[in-house]
Amino acid sequence: MEKLLYTGKAKQMWQTDDPDVLRVVYMDQATALNGKQKDHFTGKGAAAKAISDLVFRYLIDHGIQTHFIKQVSPTADLVKKCQMFPLEFVTRNVIAGHFASRYGLDEGQVLDEPVEETFYKSDQLDDPFINESATIALEIASHADLAKMWGLCREVNGLLKPLFEKAGMRLVDFKLEFGRLSDGQIVLADEFSPDNCRLWDLETDQHLDKDVYRRKLADLTQTYDEVLDRLQGVLTEED
Amino acid sequence: MEKLLYTGKAKQMWQTDDPDVLRVVYMDQATALNGKQKDHFTGKGAAAKAISDLVFRYLIDHGIQTHFIKQVSPTADLVKKCQMFPLEFVTRNVIAGHFASRYGLDEGQVLDEPVEETFYKSDQLDDPFINESATIALEIASHADLAKMWGLCREVNGLLKPLFEKAGMRLVDFKLEFGRLSDGQIVLADEFSPDNCRLWDLETDQHLDKDVYRRKLADLTQTYDEVLDRLQGVLTEED
Repeated sequence: MEKLLYTGKAKQMWQTDDPDVLRVVYMDQATALNGKQKDHFTGKGAAAKAISDLVFRYLIDHGIQTHFIKQVSPTADLVKKCQMFPLEFVTRNVIAGHFASRYGLDEGQVLDEPVEETFYKSDQLDDPFINESATIALEIASHADLAKMWGLCREVNGLLKPLFEKAGMRLVDFKLEFGRLSDGQIVLADEFSPDNCRLWDLETDQHLDKDVYRRKLADLTQTYDEVLDRLQGVLTEED
Repeated sequence: MEKLLYTGKAKQMWQTDDPDVLRVVYMDQATALNGKQKDHFTGKGAAAKAISDLVFRYLIDHGIQTHFIKQVSPTADLVKKCQMFPLEFVTRNVIAGHFASRYGLDEGQVLDEPVEETFYKSDQLDDPFINESATIALEIASHADLAKMWGLCREVNGLLKPLFEKAGMRLVDFKLEFGRLSDGQIVLADEFSPDNCRLWDLETDQHLDKDVYRRKLADLTQTYDEVLDRLQGVLTEED
């Protein structure tokens, strides 16, 4: 019997017969303001999952270790079970969103070097910003773990920025999460979809990510389908 | 003619005849909640200044470069003019205050290694937390500047923790600010008083700092006078 382990904002995690394997189900749901705003969007789960699968396969093909195993339905994947670090690793190539409002900056300025920020995952505490010193003091991760995970973030940025550019999109910022497999290896986990990154059309700066929902700009599922189409176009060419 | 350059929450900065020298006047005022709460306390300015002067003289005697020149009245000092970094450097030896509430922790736990945090000084933005990556990207300070200033924070902590312990107080946390002199040298500036540090009685954990005002626990000026007495006692012994 499969058992529901966890319901997040956009995904559910289910136990499987294999103790090292979980089933992730992408839901037709979007949330904003740390869950205070929540809405249903038919087809959004499948679109987000299809984008994330494409990205994870692309990263795996380019040497990044991830939790991804395979798709089992249009809205579900099998993934390797990880001990997750309760951290969000945010990489910013362009000033946008909270970063802009927090420091009183205009959105859109390209950063010479990416800005790297970690947030402590806690719904109760509203995912507070955390720095390396506190992460280590509170025994959330070691110096070596953080170096490994930031190294993976930089590799991912180096691979995905040009990929999205080929697909006509600027990778403005993105959030990654990591976990540790039972053998101790740290791997990329969670997902990579417009739920946790910002994508702007290269020509028009049109938003092609969850900001269309946060800012009520366009239909969420249609936007995600557009991103999927563009990515599929580029990745088909590459094959 | 002296000209008022700046009025802060607890101090005023005045021009002097020497373009490299400023006069700092400590006011009988305390604020909390980033200025939203403000009250008058007779004698508080003189007590805070007397504590800060003792601490700065002690640090100078132990090799720390600072902006301090000399006292010119019970509430005023002359200091070297600096180009200030708009950063607050917070060192935490014990979990308390915002750090406790931000991460859902109890106050009072001693940290194995001090936690080091920087905040971007901006009243308008409520002094947001900032990490090294953003500090550099926004050209607030360079890697080398930050390394220099954190080095000074560690030296200051190494000197003041035992000093306050001798005076029967635990140095729970403290905030430092730095500036650059006209010759390019980075020096400790601002002040060191119970306005910007937490001091707890070693035996009773009684608060001996601005928390008595923030939390309405005791008279502010009396508390600062108590800290001053204890410090003077220890420093007189040392002479």
